[in-house]
This record gives sequence, C-alpha cells and structure tokens, in this order.
Amino acid sequence: MSNGDVFLGEVIGTAILILFGAGVVAAVVLNYSKAKDAGWVVIAFGWGFGVLAGAYTAAPLSGGHLNPAVTIGIAVDTGDWDQVPVYIAGQMVGAMLGAVLCWLTYYAQFRANAEEELAQPTLGIFSTAPAIRNPVANLVTEIIATVGLVLPILAFGLTKGLGESGTAVLVVAFLVVGIGLSLGGPTGYAINPARDLGPRIVHTLLPIPNKGTSDWGYAWIPVVGPLIGGALSGVIFNAAF
Amino acid sequence: MSNGDVFLGEVIGTAILILFGAGVVAAVVLNYSKAKDAGWVVIAFGWGFGVLAGAYTAAPLSGGHLNPAVTIGIAVDTGDWDQVPVYIAGQMVGAMLGAVLCWLTYYAQFRANAEEELAQPTLGIFSTAPAIRNPVANLVTEIIATVGLVLPILAFGLTKGLGESGTAVLVVAFLVVGIGLSLGGPTGYAINPARDLGPRIVHTLLPIPNKGTSDWGYAWIPVVGPLIGGALSGVIFNAAF
Amino acid sequence: MSNGDVFLGEVIGTAILILFGAGVVAAVVLNYSKAKDAGWVVIAFGWGFGVLAGAYTAAPLSGGHLNPAVTIGIAVDTGDWDQVPVYIAGQMVGAMLGAVLCWLTYYAQFRANAEEELAQPTLGIFSTAPAIRNPVANLVTEIIATVGLVLPILAFGLTKGLGESGTAVLVVAFLVVGIGLSLGGPTGYAINPARDLGPRIVHTLLPIPNKGTSDWGYAWIPVVGPLIGGALSGVIFNAAF
Amino acid sequence: MSNGDVFLGEVIGTAILILFGAGVVAAVVLNYSKAKDAGWVVIAFGWGFGVLAGAYTAAPLSGGHLNPAVTIGIAVDTGDWDQVPVYIAGQMVGAMLGAVLCWLTYYAQFRANAEEELAQPTLGIFSTAPAIRNPVANLVTEIIATVGLVLPILAFGLTKGLGESGTAVLVVAFLVVGIGLSLGGPTGYAINPARDLGPRIVHTLLPIPNKGTSDWGYAWIPVVGPLIGGALSGVIFNAAF
Repeated sequence: MSNGDVFLGEVIGTAILILFGAGVVAAVVLNYSKAKDAGWVVIAFGWGFGVLAGAYTAAPLSGGHLNPAVTIGIAVDTGDWDQVPVYIAGQMVGAMLGAVLCWLTYYAQFRANAEEELAQPTLGIFSTAPAIRNPVANLVTEIIATVGLVLPILAFGLTKGLGESGTAVLVVAFLVVGIGLSLGGPTGYAINPARDLGPRIVHTLLPIPNKGTSDWGYAWIPVVGPLIGGALSGVIFNAAF
Repeated sequence: MSNGDVFLGEVIGTAILILFGAGVVAAVVLNYSKAKDAGWVVIAFGWGFGVLAGAYTAAPLSGGHLNPAVTIGIAVDTGDWDQVPVYIAGQMVGAMLGAVLCWLTYYAQFRANAEEELAQPTLGIFSTAPAIRNPVANLVTEIIATVGLVLPILAFGLTKGLGESGTAVLVVAFLVVGIGLSLGGPTGYAINPARDLGPRIVHTLLPIPNKGTSDWGYAWIPVVGPLIGGALSGVIFNAAF
Repeated sequence: MSNGDVFLGEVIGTAILILFGAGVVAAVVLNYSKAKDAGWVVIAFGWGFGVLAGAYTAAPLSGGHLNPAVTIGIAVDTGDWDQVPVYIAGQMVGAMLGAVLCWLTYYAQFRANAEEELAQPTLGIFSTAPAIRNPVANLVTEIIATVGLVLPILAFGLTKGLGESGTAVLVVAFLVVGIGLSLGGPTGYAINPARDLGPRIVHTLLPIPNKGTSDWGYAWIPVVGPLIGGALSGVIFNAAF
Repeated sequence: MSNGDVFLGEVIGTAILILFGAGVVAAVVLNYSKAKDAGWVVIAFGWGFGVLAGAYTAAPLSGGHLNPAVTIGIAVDTGDWDQVPVYIAGQMVGAMLGAVLCWLTYYAQFRANAEEELAQPTLGIFSTAPAIRNPVANLVTEIIATVGLVLPILAFGLTKGLGESGTAVLVVAFLVVGIGLSLGGPTGYAINPARDLGPRIVHTLLPIPNKGTSDWGYAWIPVVGPLIGGALSGVIFNAAF
C-alpha cells in the first residue's frame, strides 16, 4: 500500500472511530442528549462499533490499524518498520479530526452545558481519566488491557477463513466491546495512544466555554502504557506462535 | 434488477425496518408495554436489527437500500441515477406501510394512552425530534451522522469476502446500532429521509385520539440533512478510494 | 432427512431453545437469581441466543425449525407438507422437555418463591400473557410479529453465501432479538405455537406449589396467531420473490 | 498438535478468558470502577467476549478449548483421551495466571476496597457462589448449563461452513453470553472446572487484605457438575448425531 493510501486510510478510519467513541461518551454524559445516563454497556458497544465503522472503512486503503499500539505490535512481529511513521501520523490527524467532528455533532449540548450554573467538566468526552489516580497501577492496567487487544488481533491473522470471509473486523469490534466491559473500569481503557492524545490536544485548543482542565499531568500514561502493551504483544506473539 | 422488483423490494424491506424501528420506540415509551422504560440500548439495537430484518429480506429483489441517503450516495459514486426515483418511491411507500403496521401492533397501547388523563405525545414513535431545537446544529448533526452511515457502507463493498459470505447486512446492522448509540443523542438520528417523512405523514393521517402535534416545522431537517450526508459520502468515497 | 432424524433434531433443538428462553425469564423475575430485574434487553438477548444454541444444534439433523410457524411457512412456500407433522410433534415434545429442564435449573428458586408469603405467579416463565387483554389486538400483534420472523427467514435462503458461511443461524438469532425488542411489548411475543403451548401444558402438570393460574383462556391466541403469521409469510414470499 | 503447543495455547487462551471474565465482575462490583453496578447484561457479555478473545488466540495452537468440560466432551465423543491431561493442565495454569492478571489490572480498586470500613468480600470476582445454597440443586444447575454449552459446541462441528468462515468462535462467544443470561441465575454459571478452581486457588494464595472467605466447602460443585455435564454432552452427541 502506498504511503498516501495508508495516511488517508488511517485519517478517515481513525476520525470515524473517534467520532463514534467520543460521541457515545457525549451521548451518555451531556444533558439534553437522548442517551443521557444510558450506562457503561452503551459506552462499551459504542466504542466497539466505532472500531467496526472506522476499520472497515479504512481497510481497503491502509488495512485499518487506527491505533499506534496495533501498528507497533505488527511491526515488532514482522520486523518491518518502514511505514510505521506514516501510520501513526495518519492516526494522530484522524483522532484530532474525529474529536472536532464529535464536538460539532454535539455542539448544542456543549453550549447548553457551558451555560449551566455548574458546567460539568468535558474532558471525559475526549480523553481518559483514572478512577483512582495511581501512576504505576494505571500504567499496569493500560499495558494489560492493550495486550488483551493486540495479542488476539495478531492471532486472528492465523485463524483460517476469518480474513477471507470479511468478518475479521466484526470480531475485532466485539473484542473491543469486551475490553471496555471487562478491563475499562480502572482507567477508562485508552489502549490507543492516538485515541487519547489527539482528542486531548483538540480539547485544549477548541473554544469550548467552561470546558474544565485538559489534565496534561495524566496524559503520558495512556500513551506510554499502550505503546508498551503493543510492543509486548508482538514479543509474546513472536515467541509463542 | 427490474423496476418492479426494486420497487417491491424497497416497499417490503422499508416496511419491515419501520415496523421494527417505530415498534421499539413504542415498546419503550408507551404504558402497558413489557419493554416500558427499557432504555436507549434497547432503542439502538431495535433499529439496528430492523435494518437486519428489512435489508436481508429486500436484498434479493432490490439490494436492500431502504434509505434515500444510501441510494443517493451510491448514485453519486457510480454516476448511475436511472433507478433512483424507483428506489425512493418504494422507500416512501414502505416507510408509510411500516408505520401503519407498528400502529396496528401496538393498537391496544395507543388506545390506552389516549384514554389517560395526560396522554403523552405519540410523534416520537413515528418520527424524530431534536433534544435542543437549533436548526443549524440539528442539520449538522444529521449530516455528520449520515456520513457515518453511508461512507462505511460504500467502503464495505471493497472489503474482500464480506458480500460473498452473506454477512455484509449483519455488519451494516451493527453499524446502525453504533450510530444510534454514539450519534443519536442530539436529534434521535433520522439519517434517512424516508424513515422520518413517511411515518410523519402517517402520524398526521392516522385516526389516533390525543396524538399530539406532527411538528411539521422540523420535518425538513431530517430530510435535507441525510440527503446532503448521503451525497457528501459519495463525493468523499469517489475522491478517497 | 429421515423422519427419525427430523423428530430427534426438533426435540433436542426446541428443548434447548425453551431451556434458554424460559430460563432467562426465570432469571429476571424470580427472587434469589443473580439476574433478578436485569430488564427487557436481557430477556430479548436470552431468547435470541436460545435460538442460536437450539437451531445450530438441531441443524445437522432437521434443519432446525424449532417452530411450527416456520415449518408451515416453508411448507406453504414449497408445497411439500410430508414431514410437517413430524416437525411439529418434535417441536411440541422438545418444548415440554425444555420447560421441565428450566424448572430443574431454577428448582431452588421456584421452591423459595412458593414459600414466600406472597408467591408471585410463575406462568410468565413458561408462557406468554398480554399486557392488555384484547383478543383481536393480541391476535393481530402475534400475526404481524410472526410475519416479521418468518418472512425474513424465508428470504435468508436467497441471500448468497449466508448458508455456505454457516452464519445463517447467527443472523436468525439476532432477528429474534430484534423481534423481542421491537414487537414484544404488547403480548410478550410467542411467535411460535410450540414455544407457548408446550410449556403451558408443563406448567399445568408440574407439581410447583403456589404456581398460580395457567390461564388457558388466552392459550389459543399464541397458537392461532403464529400459525396464521407463518402461513401468511409463505404466501407473501411466494407472491413477491 | 504437539503437547507443547497445546499446553501453551491453553495457558494463553484461558488466561485471557479469566482476565476478561474475572475482570468484568471486578468492573461491576468494586467501588471506584467506571462500570460499577452496570448489571448482569454487562457480566454476561464480558464473559462471552472473554471466550472470543481467548479462544481465537488459542485456536492456532490448541484449538482453544479453555475448559475441561469441553475437552472431556470431545474425548467422550472421539474416544481419543491422549492429550486430555495436557489440555487440563494448561487450562488450570492459564486460569490461575488470568486471575493474577485481573488482580493486577484492578489493583488500586482492590486496595481501596480493603481500606473501607466494611470491605466487601472479593471471592465473587474470582469464583462462583450459589444464590441459594443447595448442593443437589446447584449440581443439577451446573450439569444442565454445561450441557447447554458443550452439546451445541459439538454440534457446531457439523454445521457446514462455520469452521471454514472462521466464525465458529464468534458463535461460541454468543452462546456463552446466552448461557450467562439464561442459566446463570442460580449458581453464577461456572460451567468450567478450571474457570472456578484455578481462580479460587489464587484467591486463597494472593495477599489481598480483607479478602474474605474462599468458600472451599462449595468448591467441588463447580468442578464436578461441569465434568458430568461435559461427559454427558459427549454421550448425547454420540447417541443422537
């Protein structure tokens, strides 16, 4: 695949992923949303089907990684690092674009929130935050959860017929739902550096009144943890399979 | 496919879609329904599986578009507009038929609602309404959400094996669930002009006592927004893929 | 397929369907169940995955109808009525066996319920009851909901690749989830004469203390409605496809 | 498959299964988890998608049994018991590893729980407990629920195309969701001796303050019941198919 196709595919796919993923959090937390307080099951399925939408769309152009942890896991496995920077650049641009699209989709809700006497913080729509702030524990959680994502994805490539039947992305989507349900409790499961860092930059830049902190002190954990988890997955996969 | 098959397929498929989709809203909002207050997750999956039921049924006859935004997105992509009017006519007739079938299915619940001292408005079962009334923001939401539907559908056609394994419609169904969960908060996600306009006409015509307003002032947004979104998807797809 | 295989397949498959389906209602309504009050979404997915379990198991022996309405819809379509009595006999025996297995699975919960001062009625675990008792409206609901099941199933046979990829039953399972979510509100969606009548007979016969009425006055509707709906689906399918 | 591959596959796959499965219970029951009180539907889908993640990962190495009841059901069917001890050893080691990984993932939550005035018992995260303690009824529930798992899995092997399309594990995952929803109410559905015994050993050994009892008096039921259910499934399958 050409560098241009890879970049374009990752931009479009990651934008769709973040539009859906940030969107479902907006849907559940903002007032004047029809999905207000719809619960964790809605958030987990929303993110999973965001992967479905984004990865199927990107697949013909770039294979649909949408996540530097996946890209690095594959590179560690194959030893081919040539297009890694192109993938990650596309993922970062796409994640920022998707965050802007989410803000536009929920524009009236963001404005109504800003006008309330006690505007609620909006960072949770864009990026993750831990339930208990504990850097070592949070980092471990993100590493384990990312291995839970990337190691199965690498193994899917060995499953006879899954690629040929076109259902591999569907299976990945349900895998992501499962990670959200099972491993998302402590940190909100970034498991993807672009998913967290891109929207955090956008949250800092966007002119949203009363938006609250962008919490840059925590920002390194959902970047470093998933990168370690992705590389570790490649190492385990190479050793075991 | 002949014009007759296309028309018939779209009538049957869209009728099933609206029967399920309007049905799940009736199930959740009307009193004396076993799914009363079952929440947004039920609404999103109900609409998604309505697409599953309707599109698989229509597929052998018409390909199962069930949505003018999909039909127009495909026409912009392929440049072939010959059967577009037949598709849209079938979709409108089907959507109206489906709305009538939903009313018959929940007939006893509609009657009980009319007899309550404070009958609740029934338009929400048939058509969408915004959580915050803001024409520009509502239009933008519907455009973005429709691109989130139609652009992936166009890309699915490029995914190796998805059509051959017969699972393409299943994937579209989960995509529609995802749009409902993630992007439905602000406007209730029409993302389909026939889905909104057909049942609104039926709501105006049906002899339901105490049915409340049909809110024609809003009706243009869930028609125009999805049409723009469908065409825009075709343009993006042509440019990028 | 031999009559013996058909009978055996339908007995096993329908028993599994009713074990799961009656089981999920027991799980949600009985005290001392870990799924107590888990809501309508759990009931709809429980019945749908009961179809998945039962129909995949029965498929190699009998094709996995598990429902006289499906058997009759196929017979009206093909004109071949030879094995219809064998299918329906197997479905009735299987439904009764499944109801007994559900009672054994939740034996301690049934006993605890009987010992409470106000034992709740148990028929709802076995068979359906309308939210509003209105024979004509209830019959119409069951007819429409059954067409919503059987017409898509007949059309699935025309979808290229769905049978070859082995995913047809998976799609039917999600279809059944959708019918539960969307069309189950008024009558609890029997959509299957054996599913309702078999367990009702078992409810009458089983020695469950304080079990409450078996409500035989309503029993004809979830038999006649689905039979009409199944036949009607065959007629529509023959005419349109 | 070599003994080494089988052992390694079952260790990795069962570890992932238990990481997700114990993880989702931790997510729902522990304070300071974003999924706190998310309900039974979340638990059932979390376990099901744990099977998806673990079994797809293990499949290329060992076929992905992850459960002694499945291994024994297959051995009874085929008559080949050669690798049964290797499978079960891998499943036990994997289950214990997965329980440790879950504890690490939710480390901060476990610590916060221990510091509360009334620390809640933690065994439910690791192993099952009955809603009503009744050995005979609990054993019957586990036997029936395990047949509901293993008999369909054996039959899936006869479904044309399910293996070739790579979607067999996806179907098993939804089957496990269904068992959780429908048959999990009385005992919390061990349906897998390794899933219950391995984490119970880990619960006994781990230095978790205020962890509460490991309830060894109940431990034999979720071992013996599933073993009987698995063997019974092989017998029924051999007789009927």
